[in-house]
Amino acid sequence: MMKSSLKYIFPLIPFLFIACNKKKETKDIHSENLLVFPTGEKITNGNFTGTAYLQMLMDADSLNSISVGNVTFEPGARSKWHTHPAGQILLVIDGVGYYQEKGQPKKILRKGDAIKCPPNVPHWHGAGSDKTFVQVAITGREKGETVWLEPVTDEEYHK
Amino acid sequence: MMKSSLKYIFPLIPFLFIACNKKKETKDIHSENLLVFPTGEKITNGNFTGTAYLQMLMDADSLNSISVGNVTFEPGARSKWHTHPAGQILLVIDGVGYYQEKGQPKKILRKGDAIKCPPNVPHWHGAGSDKTFVQVAITGREKGETVWLEPVTDEEYHK
Repeated sequence: MMKSSLKYIFPLIPFLFIACNKKKETKDIHSENLLVFPTGEKITNGNFTGTAYLQMLMDADSLNSISVGNVTFEPGARSKWHTHPAGQILLVIDGVGYYQEKGQPKKILRKGDAIKCPPNVPHWHGAGSDKTFVQVAITGREKGETVWLEPVTDEEYHK
Repeated sequence: MMKSSLKYIFPLIPFLFIACNKKKETKDIHSENLLVFPTGEKITNGNFTGTAYLQMLMDADSLNSISVGNVTFEPGARSKWHTHPAGQILLVIDGVGYYQEKGQPKKILRKGDAIKCPPNVPHWHGAGSDKTFVQVAITGREKGETVWLEPVTDEEYHK
Protein backbone atom coordinates (compact mmCIF):
# COMPACT_ATOMS: atom_id res chain seq x y z
CA MET A 1 0.00 0.00 0.00
CA MET A 2 2.85 2.37 0.90
CA LYS A 3 4.68 1.50 -2.29
CA SER A 4 1.61 2.27 -4.38
CA SER A 5 1.13 5.70 -2.65
CA LEU A 6 4.70 6.54 -3.46
CA LYS A 7 4.01 5.80 -7.11
CA TYR A 8 1.29 8.52 -7.16
CA ILE A 9 3.05 11.11 -5.01
CA PHE A 10 6.46 11.15 -6.70
CA PRO A 11 5.16 12.44 -10.05
CA LEU A 12 3.33 15.26 -8.24
CA ILE A 13 6.39 16.76 -6.57
CA PRO A 14 7.78 18.57 -9.66
CA PHE A 15 4.37 20.22 -10.18
CA LEU A 16 4.45 21.60 -6.63
CA PHE A 17 7.80 23.23 -7.39
CA ILE A 18 6.49 24.61 -10.70
CA ALA A 19 3.46 26.09 -8.89
CA CYS A 20 5.78 27.78 -6.39
CA ASN A 21 8.03 29.20 -9.10
CA LYS A 22 5.07 30.52 -11.07
CA LYS A 23 3.91 32.54 -8.08
CA LYS A 24 7.40 33.95 -7.57
CA GLU A 25 7.40 35.19 -11.17
CA THR A 26 4.07 36.96 -10.66
CA LYS A 27 5.40 38.65 -7.52
CA ASP A 28 8.46 39.99 -9.39
CA ILE A 29 6.32 41.44 -12.17
CA HIS A 30 4.19 43.18 -9.52
CA SER A 31 7.28 44.66 -7.85
CA GLU A 32 8.51 46.15 -11.13
CA ASN A 33 5.09 47.64 -11.78
CA LEU A 34 4.88 49.40 -8.42
CA LEU A 35 6.26 52.71 -9.74
CA VAL A 36 3.69 54.55 -11.84
CA PHE A 37 5.97 57.07 -13.61
CA PRO A 38 9.58 56.87 -14.87
CA THR A 39 12.27 58.05 -12.43
CA GLY A 40 13.73 60.47 -14.99
CA GLU A 41 17.04 62.32 -14.78
CA LYS A 42 19.21 63.16 -11.77
CA ILE A 43 18.61 66.77 -10.64
CA THR A 44 21.86 68.77 -10.91
CA ASN A 45 20.60 72.35 -10.44
CA GLY A 46 21.90 72.73 -6.86
CA ASN A 47 18.41 73.20 -5.39
CA PHE A 48 18.45 69.79 -3.68
CA THR A 49 20.57 68.19 -0.92
CA GLY A 50 21.40 64.53 -1.67
CA THR A 51 20.26 62.64 -4.77
CA ALA A 52 16.92 63.40 -6.40
CA TYR A 53 15.49 62.68 -9.86
CA LEU A 54 12.93 64.54 -11.99
CA GLN A 55 10.65 63.25 -14.72
CA MET A 56 8.56 66.10 -16.14
CA LEU A 57 5.05 64.81 -16.97
CA MET A 58 3.57 68.05 -18.34
CA ASP A 59 5.06 71.47 -19.09
CA ALA A 60 3.10 74.67 -18.61
CA ASP A 61 2.15 76.39 -21.88
CA SER A 62 -0.08 79.18 -23.16
CA LEU A 63 -3.19 76.95 -22.91
CA ASN A 64 -2.62 75.65 -19.38
CA SER A 65 -0.29 77.25 -16.83
CA ILE A 66 0.00 74.09 -14.68
CA SER A 67 3.19 72.03 -14.78
CA VAL A 68 3.42 68.48 -13.42
CA GLY A 69 6.60 66.61 -12.49
CA ASN A 70 7.44 63.32 -10.79
CA VAL A 71 10.27 63.74 -8.25
CA THR A 72 12.11 60.78 -6.67
CA PHE A 73 14.18 61.52 -3.55
CA GLU A 74 16.72 58.94 -2.35
CA PRO A 75 16.78 58.44 1.46
CA GLY A 76 17.88 61.67 3.18
CA ALA A 77 17.51 63.79 0.01
CA ARG A 78 15.45 67.00 0.20
CA SER A 79 14.77 70.26 -1.58
CA LYS A 80 16.14 73.59 -0.36
CA TRP A 81 13.65 75.85 1.39
CA HIS A 82 11.59 77.53 -1.36
CA THR A 83 8.33 79.29 -2.21
CA HIS A 84 5.85 79.04 -5.10
CA PRO A 85 4.12 82.29 -6.18
CA ALA A 86 0.90 80.35 -7.05
CA GLY A 87 1.34 77.51 -4.52
CA GLN A 88 1.79 73.81 -5.20
CA ILE A 89 0.00 70.49 -4.65
CA LEU A 90 2.01 67.35 -3.83
CA LEU A 91 0.68 63.82 -4.38
CA VAL A 92 2.65 61.02 -2.74
CA ILE A 93 3.12 58.12 -5.17
CA ASP A 94 5.39 55.90 -3.07
CA GLY A 95 7.53 55.74 0.05
CA VAL A 96 7.73 57.97 3.11
CA GLY A 97 8.82 61.61 3.18
CA TYR A 98 8.62 64.94 4.94
CA TYR A 99 6.97 68.32 4.29
CA GLN A 100 7.65 71.34 6.47
CA GLU A 101 6.52 74.97 6.36
CA LYS A 102 8.71 77.60 8.05
CA GLY A 103 7.86 77.79 11.77
CA GLN A 104 5.69 74.63 11.68
CA PRO A 105 6.56 71.07 12.73
CA LYS A 106 7.66 68.59 10.04
CA LYS A 107 4.79 66.51 8.60
CA ILE A 108 5.24 62.87 7.56
CA LEU A 109 3.89 62.07 4.07
CA ARG A 110 2.96 58.56 2.95
CA LYS A 111 1.83 56.91 -0.32
CA GLY A 112 -1.65 58.21 -1.23
CA ASP A 113 -1.33 61.49 0.73
CA ALA A 114 -1.97 64.87 -0.91
CA ILE A 115 -0.81 68.20 0.51
CA LYS A 116 -1.25 71.85 -0.52
CA CYS A 117 1.69 74.27 -0.17
CA PRO A 118 0.18 77.78 0.07
CA PRO A 119 1.52 80.54 -2.20
CA ASN A 120 4.67 82.33 -0.96
CA VAL A 121 5.08 80.20 2.20
CA PRO A 122 8.70 78.99 2.62
CA HIS A 123 8.75 75.18 2.86
CA TRP A 124 10.76 72.10 1.90
CA HIS A 125 10.01 68.48 1.08
CA GLY A 126 12.07 65.33 0.79
CA ALA A 127 12.55 61.67 1.67
CA GLY A 128 12.68 60.11 5.12
CA SER A 129 16.19 59.13 6.24
CA ASP A 130 15.76 55.44 5.31
CA LYS A 131 13.09 55.42 2.58
CA THR A 132 12.96 56.56 -1.04
CA PHE A 133 10.12 59.05 -1.56
CA VAL A 134 8.25 59.54 -4.84
CA GLN A 135 5.93 62.53 -5.29
CA VAL A 136 4.08 64.28 -8.10
CA ALA A 137 4.34 68.08 -7.87
CA ILE A 138 1.53 70.14 -9.46
CA THR A 139 2.56 73.77 -9.84
CA GLY A 140 0.69 76.79 -11.20
CA ARG A 141 3.17 78.88 -13.20
CA GLU A 142 0.86 81.85 -13.91
CA LYS A 143 2.42 84.06 -11.21
CA GLY A 144 6.06 83.19 -11.88
CA GLU A 145 8.65 80.56 -11.08
CA THR A 146 9.73 78.85 -7.83
CA VAL A 147 11.89 81.06 -5.56
CA TRP A 148 14.79 79.03 -4.10
CA LEU A 149 16.09 79.89 -0.62
CA GLU A 150 18.74 78.36 1.73
CA PRO A 151 19.48 74.60 2.08
CA VAL A 152 17.72 72.56 4.79
CA THR A 153 20.45 71.88 7.36
CA ASP A 154 20.99 68.42 8.87
CA GLU A 155 19.74 69.86 12.18
CA GLU A 156 16.49 71.09 10.56
CA TYR A 157 16.09 67.82 8.66
CA HIS A 158 16.48 65.60 11.74
CA LYS A 159 14.49 67.81 14.15
CA MET B 1 14.83 1.48 -0.16
CA MET B 2 11.55 2.83 -1.57
CA LYS B 3 9.85 2.56 1.78
CA SER B 4 12.62 4.52 3.48
CA SER B 5 12.41 7.32 0.84
CA LEU B 6 8.72 7.62 1.45
CA LYS B 7 9.40 8.12 5.17
CA TYR B 8 11.50 11.20 4.36
CA ILE B 9 9.35 12.64 1.59
CA PHE B 10 5.96 12.48 3.27
CA PRO B 11 6.84 14.93 6.07
CA LEU B 12 8.16 17.41 3.45
CA ILE B 13 4.91 17.69 1.48
CA PRO B 14 3.09 20.01 3.92
CA PHE B 15 6.10 22.39 3.84
CA LEU B 16 5.88 22.61 0.06
CA PHE B 17 2.25 23.68 0.39
CA ILE B 18 3.18 26.22 3.11
CA ALA B 19 5.91 27.65 0.85
CA CYS B 20 3.39 28.04 -1.97
CA ASN B 21 0.83 29.72 0.27
CA LYS B 22 3.42 32.12 1.66
CA LYS B 23 4.23 33.35 -1.84
CA LYS B 24 0.54 33.73 -2.64
CA GLU B 25 0.16 35.96 0.43
CA THR B 26 3.04 38.18 -0.72
CA LYS B 27 1.45 38.51 -4.15
CA ASP B 28 -1.87 39.57 -2.63
CA ILE B 29 -0.19 42.26 -0.54
CA HIS B 30 1.51 43.58 -3.70
CA SER B 31 -1.79 43.63 -5.57
CA GLU B 32 -3.39 45.71 -2.82
CA ASN B 33 -0.45 48.11 -2.88
CA LEU B 34 -0.66 48.63 -6.64
CA LEU B 35 -3.28 51.33 -6.29
CA VAL B 36 -1.77 54.57 -5.05
CA PHE B 37 -4.98 56.37 -4.02
CA PRO B 38 -8.28 55.14 -2.51
CA THR B 39 -11.05 54.27 -5.00
CA GLY B 40 -13.53 56.56 -3.27
CA GLU B 41 -17.28 56.72 -3.84
CA LYS B 42 -19.38 55.60 -6.81
CA ILE B 43 -20.22 58.55 -9.08
CA THR B 44 -24.00 59.03 -9.24
CA ASN B 45 -24.27 62.45 -10.93
CA GLY B 46 -25.36 61.10 -14.33
CA ASN B 47 -22.26 62.43 -16.12
CA PHE B 48 -20.79 58.94 -16.63
CA THR B 49 -21.88 55.83 -18.57
CA GLY B 50 -21.21 52.62 -16.62
CA THR B 51 -19.62 52.46 -13.17
CA ALA B 52 -17.00 54.98 -12.11
CA TYR B 53 -15.64 56.06 -8.71
CA LEU B 54 -14.23 59.39 -7.49
CA GLN B 55 -11.82 60.10 -4.65
CA MET B 56 -11.16 63.85 -4.38
CA LEU B 57 -7.51 64.43 -3.43
CA MET B 58 -7.56 68.24 -3.28
CA ASP B 59 -10.36 70.79 -3.57
CA ALA B 60 -9.84 74.19 -5.19
CA ASP B 61 -9.89 77.08 -2.72
CA SER B 62 -9.10 80.79 -2.56
CA LEU B 63 -5.34 80.04 -2.29
CA ASN B 64 -5.08 77.57 -5.18
CA SER B 65 -7.69 77.18 -7.94
CA ILE B 66 -6.51 73.68 -8.94
CA SER B 67 -8.59 70.64 -7.94
CA VAL B 68 -7.26 67.07 -8.07
CA GLY B 69 -9.34 63.89 -8.12
CA ASN B 70 -8.64 60.19 -8.61
CA VAL B 71 -11.21 58.58 -10.93
CA THR B 72 -11.57 54.80 -11.35
CA PHE B 73 -13.53 53.57 -14.39
CA GLU B 74 -14.71 49.95 -14.51
CA PRO B 75 -14.29 48.26 -17.93
CA GLY B 76 -16.49 50.02 -20.53
CA ALA B 77 -17.24 53.01 -18.25
CA ARG B 78 -16.65 56.51 -19.59
CA SER B 79 -17.48 60.16 -19.02
CA LYS B 80 -20.00 62.07 -21.16
CA TRP B 81 -18.53 64.44 -23.71
CA HIS B 82 -17.52 67.58 -21.78
CA THR B 83 -15.34 70.70 -21.78
CA HIS B 84 -13.17 72.43 -19.15
CA PRO B 85 -12.99 76.26 -19.31
CA ALA B 86 -9.34 76.19 -18.09
CA GLY B 87 -8.41 72.77 -19.53
CA GLN B 88 -7.35 69.65 -17.67
CA ILE B 89 -4.33 67.35 -17.23
CA LEU B 90 -4.84 63.59 -16.86
CA LEU B 91 -2.23 61.27 -15.28
CA VAL B 92 -2.77 57.55 -15.80
CA ILE B 93 -2.20 55.68 -12.52
CA ASP B 94 -3.23 52.18 -13.64
CA GLY B 95 -4.90 50.16 -16.37
CA VAL B 96 -5.75 51.00 -19.97
CA GLY B 97 -8.21 53.65 -21.12
CA TYR B 98 -9.25 56.00 -23.89
CA TYR B 99 -9.17 59.78 -24.48
CA GLN B 100 -10.86 61.38 -27.47
CA GLU B 101 -11.31 64.98 -28.61
CA LYS B 102 -14.25 65.79 -30.90
CA GLY B 103 -13.29 65.09 -34.53
CA GLN B 104 -10.03 63.31 -33.58
CA PRO B 105 -9.29 59.58 -33.36
CA LYS B 106 -9.49 57.88 -29.94
CA LYS B 107 -6.13 57.73 -28.10
CA ILE B 108 -5.15 54.77 -25.92
CA LEU B 109 -3.84 55.75 -22.47
CA ARG B 110 -1.65 53.48 -20.34
CA LYS B 111 -0.18 53.58 -16.81
CA GLY B 112 2.38 56.40 -16.59
CA ASP B 113 0.92 58.44 -19.49
CA ALA B 114 0.01 62.12 -19.09
CA ILE B 115 -2.30 64.05 -21.44
CA LYS B 116 -3.44 67.69 -21.66
CA CYS B 117 -7.09 68.44 -22.56
CA PRO B 118 -7.12 71.97 -24.03
CA PRO B 119 -9.63 74.54 -22.68
CA ASN B 120 -13.14 74.38 -24.19
CA VAL B 121 -12.42 71.39 -26.47
CA PRO B 122 -15.18 68.73 -26.22
CA HIS B 123 -13.68 65.38 -25.21
CA TRP B 124 -14.33 62.24 -23.18
CA HIS B 125 -12.22 59.71 -21.29
CA GLY B 126 -12.84 56.28 -19.84
CA ALA B 127 -11.74 52.67 -19.47
CA GLY B 128 -10.99 50.17 -22.19
CA SER B 129 -13.70 47.56 -22.70
CA ASP B 130 -11.88 44.86 -20.67
CA LYS B 131 -9.64 46.81 -18.25
CA THR B 132 -10.24 49.01 -15.22
CA PHE B 133 -8.70 52.45 -15.75
CA VAL B 134 -7.43 54.70 -12.94
CA GLN B 135 -6.55 58.34 -13.64
CA VAL B 136 -5.78 61.49 -11.69
CA ALA B 137 -7.54 64.58 -13.11
CA ILE B 138 -5.93 67.98 -12.47
CA THR B 139 -8.37 70.80 -13.23
CA GLY B 140 -7.99 74.58 -13.02
CA ARG B 141 -11.26 76.00 -11.65
CA GLU B 142 -10.40 79.70 -12.09
CA LYS B 143 -12.54 80.09 -15.25
CA GLY B 144 -15.55 78.07 -14.09
CA GLU B 145 -16.76 74.51 -13.80
CA THR B 146 -16.83 71.58 -16.25
CA VAL B 147 -19.52 71.84 -18.94
CA TRP B 148 -21.24 68.47 -19.46
CA LEU B 149 -22.53 67.55 -22.95
CA GLU B 150 -24.13 64.41 -24.48
CA PRO B 151 -23.26 60.78 -23.55
CA VAL B 152 -20.63 58.88 -25.57
CA THR B 153 -22.66 56.37 -27.60
CA ASP B 154 -21.63 52.69 -27.86
CA GLU B 155 -20.85 53.37 -31.54
CA GLU B 156 -18.50 56.26 -30.63
CA TYR B 157 -16.96 54.24 -27.80
CA HIS B 158 -16.17 51.19 -29.96
CA LYS B 159 -15.10 53.13 -33.10
